[in-house]
Amino acid sequence: MRRAQVLALLEQVAAGTLAPSAAVDGMAFDSMESLPFATIDHSRALRQGYPEVIYSPGKTAEQTVAIAERIAARGDGVLVTRADLATREALENRFREARVNEVGRTVHIAPVAGQEGPGVTGSCLIVTAGTSDLPVAEEAAETGSAIGLTIERLTDVGVAGIHRLLSQRDRLTGAGVIIVVAGMDGALPSVVGGLVAVPVIAVPTSVGYGASFGGVAALLTMLNSCASGITVVNIDNGFGAAVAASRILLTK
Amino acid sequence: MRRAQVLALLEQVAAGTLAPSAAVDGMAFDSMESLPFATIDHSRALRQGYPEVIYSPGKTAEQTVAIAERIAARGDGVLVTRADLATREALENRFREARVNEVGRTVHIAPVAGQEGPGVTGSCLIVTAGTSDLPVAEEAAETGSAIGLTIERLTDVGVAGIHRLLSQRDRLTGAGVIIVVAGMDGALPSVVGGLVAVPVIAVPTSVGYGASFGGVAALLTMLNSCASGITVVNIDNGFGAAVAASRILLTK
Amino acid sequence: MRRAQVLALLEQVAAGTLAPSAAVDGMAFDSMESLPFATIDHSRALRQGYPEVIYSPGKTAEQTVAIAERIAARGDGVLVTRADLATREALENRFREARVNEVGRTVHIAPVAGQEGPGVTGSCLIVTAGTSDLPVAEEAAETGSAIGLTIERLTDVGVAGIHRLLSQRDRLTGAGVIIVVAGMDGALPSVVGGLVAVPVIAVPTSVGYGASFGGVAALLTMLNSCASGITVVNIDNGFGAAVAASRILLTK
Amino acid sequence: MRRAQVLALLEQVAAGTLAPSAAVDGMAFDSMESLPFATIDHSRALRQGYPEVIYSPGKTAEQTVAIAERIAARGDGVLVTRADLATREALENRFREARVNEVGRTVHIAPVAGQEGPGVTGSCLIVTAGTSDLPVAEEAAETGSAIGLTIERLTDVGVAGIHRLLSQRDRLTGAGVIIVVAGMDGALPSVVGGLVAVPVIAVPTSVGYGASFGGVAALLTMLNSCASGITVVNIDNGFGAAVAASRILLTK
Amino acid sequence: MRRAQVLALLEQVAAGTLAPSAAVDGMAFDSMESLPFATIDHSRALRQGYPEVIYSPGKTAEQTVAIAERIAARGDGVLVTRADLATREALENRFREARVNEVGRTVHIAPVAGQEGPGVTGSCLIVTAGTSDLPVAEEAAETGSAIGLTIERLTDVGVAGIHRLLSQRDRLTGAGVIIVVAGMDGALPSVVGGLVAVPVIAVPTSVGYGASFGGVAALLTMLNSCASGITVVNIDNGFGAAVAASRILLTK
Amino acid sequence: MRRAQVLALLEQVAAGTLAPSAAVDGMAFDSMESLPFATIDHSRALRQGYPEVIYSPGKTAEQTVAIAERIAARGDGVLVTRADLATREALENRFREARVNEVGRTVHIAPVAGQEGPGVTGSCLIVTAGTSDLPVAEEAAETGSAIGLTIERLTDVGVAGIHRLLSQRDRLTGAGVIIVVAGMDGALPSVVGGLVAVPVIAVPTSVGYGASFGGVAALLTMLNSCASGITVVNIDNGFGAAVAASRILLTK
Amino acid sequence: MRRAQVLALLEQVAAGTLAPSAAVDGMAFDSMESLPFATIDHSRALRQGYPEVIYSPGKTAEQTVAIAERIAARGDGVLVTRADLATREALENRFREARVNEVGRTVHIAPVAGQEGPGVTGSCLIVTAGTSDLPVAEEAAETGSAIGLTIERLTDVGVAGIHRLLSQRDRLTGAGVIIVVAGMDGALPSVVGGLVAVPVIAVPTSVGYGASFGGVAALLTMLNSCASGITVVNIDNGFGAAVAASRILLTK
Amino acid sequence: MRRAQVLALLEQVAAGTLAPSAAVDGMAFDSMESLPFATIDHSRALRQGYPEVIYSPGKTAEQTVAIAERIAARGDGVLVTRADLATREALENRFREARVNEVGRTVHIAPVAGQEGPGVTGSCLIVTAGTSDLPVAEEAAETGSAIGLTIERLTDVGVAGIHRLLSQRDRLTGAGVIIVVAGMDGALPSVVGGLVAVPVIAVPTSVGYGASFGGVAALLTMLNSCASGITVVNIDNGFGAAVAASRILLTK
Repeated sequence: MRRAQVLALLEQVAAGTLAPSAAVDGMAFDSMESLPFATIDHSRALRQGYPEVIYSPGKTAEQTVAIAERIAARGDGVLVTRADLATREALENRFREARVNEVGRTVHIAPVAGQEGPGVTGSCLIVTAGTSDLPVAEEAAETGSAIGLTIERLTDVGVAGIHRLLSQRDRLTGAGVIIVVAGMDGALPSVVGGLVAVPVIAVPTSVGYGASFGGVAALLTMLNSCASGITVVNIDNGFGAAVAASRILLTK
Repeated sequence: MRRAQVLALLEQVAAGTLAPSAAVDGMAFDSMESLPFATIDHSRALRQGYPEVIYSPGKTAEQTVAIAERIAARGDGVLVTRADLATREALENRFREARVNEVGRTVHIAPVAGQEGPGVTGSCLIVTAGTSDLPVAEEAAETGSAIGLTIERLTDVGVAGIHRLLSQRDRLTGAGVIIVVAGMDGALPSVVGGLVAVPVIAVPTSVGYGASFGGVAALLTMLNSCASGITVVNIDNGFGAAVAASRILLTK
Repeated sequence: MRRAQVLALLEQVAAGTLAPSAAVDGMAFDSMESLPFATIDHSRALRQGYPEVIYSPGKTAEQTVAIAERIAARGDGVLVTRADLATREALENRFREARVNEVGRTVHIAPVAGQEGPGVTGSCLIVTAGTSDLPVAEEAAETGSAIGLTIERLTDVGVAGIHRLLSQRDRLTGAGVIIVVAGMDGALPSVVGGLVAVPVIAVPTSVGYGASFGGVAALLTMLNSCASGITVVNIDNGFGAAVAASRILLTK
Repeated sequence: MRRAQVLALLEQVAAGTLAPSAAVDGMAFDSMESLPFATIDHSRALRQGYPEVIYSPGKTAEQTVAIAERIAARGDGVLVTRADLATREALENRFREARVNEVGRTVHIAPVAGQEGPGVTGSCLIVTAGTSDLPVAEEAAETGSAIGLTIERLTDVGVAGIHRLLSQRDRLTGAGVIIVVAGMDGALPSVVGGLVAVPVIAVPTSVGYGASFGGVAALLTMLNSCASGITVVNIDNGFGAAVAASRILLTK
Repeated sequence: MRRAQVLALLEQVAAGTLAPSAAVDGMAFDSMESLPFATIDHSRALRQGYPEVIYSPGKTAEQTVAIAERIAARGDGVLVTRADLATREALENRFREARVNEVGRTVHIAPVAGQEGPGVTGSCLIVTAGTSDLPVAEEAAETGSAIGLTIERLTDVGVAGIHRLLSQRDRLTGAGVIIVVAGMDGALPSVVGGLVAVPVIAVPTSVGYGASFGGVAALLTMLNSCASGITVVNIDNGFGAAVAASRILLTK
Repeated sequence: MRRAQVLALLEQVAAGTLAPSAAVDGMAFDSMESLPFATIDHSRALRQGYPEVIYSPGKTAEQTVAIAERIAARGDGVLVTRADLATREALENRFREARVNEVGRTVHIAPVAGQEGPGVTGSCLIVTAGTSDLPVAEEAAETGSAIGLTIERLTDVGVAGIHRLLSQRDRLTGAGVIIVVAGMDGALPSVVGGLVAVPVIAVPTSVGYGASFGGVAALLTMLNSCASGITVVNIDNGFGAAVAASRILLTK
Repeated sequence: MRRAQVLALLEQVAAGTLAPSAAVDGMAFDSMESLPFATIDHSRALRQGYPEVIYSPGKTAEQTVAIAERIAARGDGVLVTRADLATREALENRFREARVNEVGRTVHIAPVAGQEGPGVTGSCLIVTAGTSDLPVAEEAAETGSAIGLTIERLTDVGVAGIHRLLSQRDRLTGAGVIIVVAGMDGALPSVVGGLVAVPVIAVPTSVGYGASFGGVAALLTMLNSCASGITVVNIDNGFGAAVAASRILLTK
Repeated sequence: MRRAQVLALLEQVAAGTLAPSAAVDGMAFDSMESLPFATIDHSRALRQGYPEVIYSPGKTAEQTVAIAERIAARGDGVLVTRADLATREALENRFREARVNEVGRTVHIAPVAGQEGPGVTGSCLIVTAGTSDLPVAEEAAETGSAIGLTIERLTDVGVAGIHRLLSQRDRLTGAGVIIVVAGMDGALPSVVGGLVAVPVIAVPTSVGYGASFGGVAALLTMLNSCASGITVVNIDNGFGAAVAASRILLTK
């Protein structure tokens, strides 16, 4: 149950057309559901505008499917991230309508009609420095789509050939939010951040070798960006970047 | 010269009431100014909504005053951060109208009338975990004020006494953007992020000792927040957090 | 031979009903047993209340079984931790009565009748932040059970949905000791520690990715907890946390 | 107001000798008090058995005195840790009865008569590896005393002369809790932990140079102790070790 | 004695106008000179084209002056780097003709006439990201000048205002070698490296705070540059960058 | 299209024998080509003297082949680095003329006749400390050859047997550029750098174990070389070292 | 050819019974042998008392066999360390007399009669903290034996049961050199070092998990040992410890 | 009381010329002495050949003097290391005969006549890479002298001018033990270790800047030395290196 639905209920209560006790039943505000291995937070969509997302690593395929079933039963839709092949197949077998992104390793089950997320204004532009950064970018794109954002892409425009980026300046300044995905030197967000006034969310990736230290080099670059007002998420965290974008675009 | 002013010029051009060449003179779009020790980016206010801010460390008080004079001459206002005592005094002597924040170590010279920043909707709520985090929070507050944001504060509500935070839930959910400033364990943004749907910007501080490693512990906590969609800036970077907030609020 | 048994012997000596030399034979206080690859510390149960536990990694299945046979022959029971599949199967083949925990990767052979550990008062509550933390929590649970503790569980109550934890406040305050198992941001012990007066033992896990650095982020969070008096064990060290709990509960 | 006092109130309510509303007034369960720079958690003594302790670094002497005044007004006593010379003097000037520990850098103002902490059973033995570790040990001793623990000391018994420790074995096994304070190699807790069955809390100190990395070497040694069930607190955190000891001893 | 001088001697030997034994006396190929605290490598100018440079930290002002006297006596000129104020003054007192650079903390005593370094072709362009990077850039400039390079400068053209750099593209492509000095995110060399075909030497600086870790962030950025063929020297090592440039330009 | 070709075009324009518009068509100065997963920078050969090189990790074999086809179509030749077995085979199947280096994991497709790189003067000598460093040395050798450098090799001359190196002093001093490849202690570049005046590029390798930390020990050694003017590239970055060498040799 | 043999030759020369030129032929003092992938240092036995040892990782089985053949041809014996299964089998096939140690992953081919190493006085005692440390201890034992040392062992006597070590005090004080092998907390060398006056060489192992960081915790413990005069080698470097022991025992 | 003295006593007992009880009184084998802040290990000279050394940091000048008085009273001599100026002066005032080394920051009070350390054979050669390494070398030299070693010095022979070292080859091969002190790249021990067969103890120093990380770079270089059998002590630990040398030379 998403925030907008609860607001509708509360407006009926305010108008006297719905009894408070009925509203409480409808809202299940504090509802949690306990499995032997999980405590599902069904009110998260209410608090934050999108339902609880299942982070797959460390869970068996069976556990992931079981949690997905409980969330799906609420009708808000389900997103599973970092799903390995076995989990992706188990989810596909159980939910025939699921959309699987092999590059981004995500599985999405759409919400039932009438429970889609709220409308948004402005697009989320996902910029990647290199082809090797695509899995993280795709995780971001799928997550954003699942929440209801309009996703655009600008791919392989790293700073070693700066004219590739400068030639797309209009797309950059026209976006609502920009997610910049880069590994190795992680220098792209600094350049993008200096070109635009809109929010820029930097995602370091683990692309690289040696002194990239699994993405630490890119992470530090972004945290120290000389372009001010850049924010950063964890290494390879395309999911988190998209949620951060939705916090910006959905609350407008 | 801020973005809004340039837009006004361009609308006059579009309406035929201003010659393009006059507009170019007025805009000085690509203007830079070279000092022996600096290349000032006068078009930053145009590109990003606020003028270039002077980061003081590593510059002599004389260099800082000289750069401030050049920027102030444009009328957009000047903000100096991390100013030590000598620099703060040198700026006060030169700019009698400057506002000095001793805790936040900032100096602000207001823009001339008619060149203030754009109006904003929504407030920026700055939440701090402990009293020792105040210098960073004040840097954020001064920066946000200088750009034109409405700043609110919620102080010393760390998670060791979680009821202090929960009792202020309404203020949290009502904010436009929340900046959470915390040192030591850096756990506060995770809790705040789980309570609200609005954008949350986490600022780790160097408050702590031993295995806090000058703020690294708090930084890592925030990058790994189990509340999704939290973004992070550099340790003690109150300035950057406020600029990130302005990117969100000003572009609405 | 456990501490309680030795005390019984000594009381007989004090009462004059047992000759000191017989008592020495019975106690084997300093007994060690040397295998080509191990020196078994048979008096550990005497000194510390539970027998030597076999940490399996780096030992072959054959070495582990051989050491287990020597310890089992004393009748105090045997616990093997971090056992891989081959070792678990080798132990099951040799000790038909062994209890194997596939999630926690432990194998337990119960002590013979009359040599169980001492009674305890108060329970050990094991709280986990997420489903992915269960293997570590199960290692703690099995270890605690083997030593003789009463184990309770509270699962998947991370701080991103703080109401899940707050709704269980009674269980928290009623425990004798609380073990909190959390990966990623590791923020849960800070919140739990602020809610209760009982001992809290924090266990960081390697759950996470990127800047979690295999559990380092959670470890640092816990070491810097703003709730005071939280103690910490090594990453993924469910075993150590349970032994620490037993030091508290058994010595009452 | 400490936990024992509230229990007394509640028992009067249960006995019908105190009206519930009077009890509420007396308890002020959720009371907080807001200063411009702090939100004091007056119910901490209630929740955890001792009042909020003031961590001094990052606060001005004036701020520390102001917070101390508010806490002292409740009668529960005040403890200030890591107080620099100026803060210690400011507190002494304001609270003539304060006890100052120059080595441990603490200031303690005793609770008013009748509001002392609860009685405890068992002593807290503080063992130090070297003379240079004394400031941390003294912080622990002062904190423990302020909470109400019986403190004993065993000083300069590091493992390079293991007979110094072994000759004190009776004192070790007779303690209720042992706090082991060690810098450099941090090896002492492993040896102590192998000798006793009681809880052992290890405190790494920043004593050392070069590859001690400000206490990191000792911290890692303790986290990896081959004696099982050792718990660890932050580097130089004598305060936290004593609070952890009090969680163990007070809740018995 | 520089390489060119020795070549001249050898050519006289080859022409029969100088006896080999006289040449040996003149060359002192393997000459070393031992002070109680130093073994001076007088043949370094011969092997590498410039005399031994005195790295000042860890040496007393007296030691530095004594070593400088010995080197100056050879006539090749002397360069002292990282000289603190006391050392700079001691050198000025002893060598009245010395040139002192207060920003770069260098002292240079010119070689005697006829022993200057070899001519070079092509200039060394030193590009700095920000004003705070100037001390390192000046160390590089002074070192390059002392060796005989033609130094040009381009200051404060960091990537947050990329147009500042792009407007100077001609100066970049026309240089013989480019030294790029940058702190914070260290992103500038990646952009420069993508614009030019000439050698680019990147110098990370310790400018920054928090997660810049004293220049480590910039160092890692540069080592992971997505522009290929960038080489890197130690943090703040302006001296080394200039020597590397001289290896390139002098050997042409 | 390489730099020399463009110069030829421009000289025709200057001579009046080629129309400017035809030259533009011929040059395609800013040409980029967008695939769904890559934006190919076809002007890189123009800007930097060699075409874009394909870094294979993180790309599927299909993506790598597709990008190689686009670049090969320009006639400038193609180099693929870090190609795993599947990618090497896919490239061999598609480009029968490709040269595959199994040790260096590179694939090279030569440029078409008339589009080879420019001539160079001086050789690039690749020195390795041990046999285990050969894969990195071979990556450097293949890259250098592809760009057009003359490659020489000196293998297994680490400092533990310093006479092996000293006996080859003539080859060292006669080289145009020296690339020194070393793992473990990474000490070889310091010794080489002290022997010669030519440019020395140091490549740390991940050869080693324990405290070599995957090449970090060698990297730090090289960054701190007491021989001045040594420059360093990323761990295992034979490719980058060769490109840096080409920047030096090609621009002479 | 070992040092002792060369001394014998030289004594003949001194006695006039051997012509100098014949001695030179016999000694081949500076002999090196170049393979395409290695430069073998045949004079190492001469300089250091034992022949060059082949470190196997990063070399193919074929390369290792080829180098072993060249060294074996000199008659000094061959030692191969860190040999994987394929390399061990390849060496066994080629050298039927080779001794393979499966635990220590070494292969040893004995020197021909008359070329054994020099006699030694005093034994090398290898002490291990736990069973999991045996592979490193065995590498040390095999290396020591190959050089000619008398090896003794004391196994599984870690500090968690300190009486196991103390009961063996005579063996400790009677050794010529002690090698102490320990993972996890690495505390054993500190205790051993405090008990004896003989040289103690500490070998940290990668045994452990979590915050042992692959042996870094044990390494740091040993570097910071509060027992003075302990020396340390790289993590898991049993080979190096044995060579260090031979430097001590052989040169007596 | 040193080892040799106790042996003399025991030989008298064996010869029947001294009663065992008198010998015990004379030996005080297990004697310890407790001050409020220290437990002095008077039997250390007995166990290890030299008395307990006072590590000064973290102790007040008064504490250091008090401990020194107790040790001096035994007649074995006293060594204080890392003494700051105040401590050095306090010791000089109290012990007029003390020898103070200002560079090495040591204070030595000689043993009384007849209690000097045992005679040794072979010298300890201390080799330093640069002038800035002298304080650490002097600490080693003073410590070695205090224990009774013959100290020789070879100063400023770093690998950047390798001929400085090679010209001293005879002194290297003739030493009993070599201590190599080096900062920055720490490469010198690898070269020395390859030249000699005697024991080599490497001491990394904190000399350097940037990526030397306070001596970590040199430490890692030495731990990964490609010359085998090099052992390493803590950064700047000249004291420990000398004690290790004495363990080798005194036990011969």
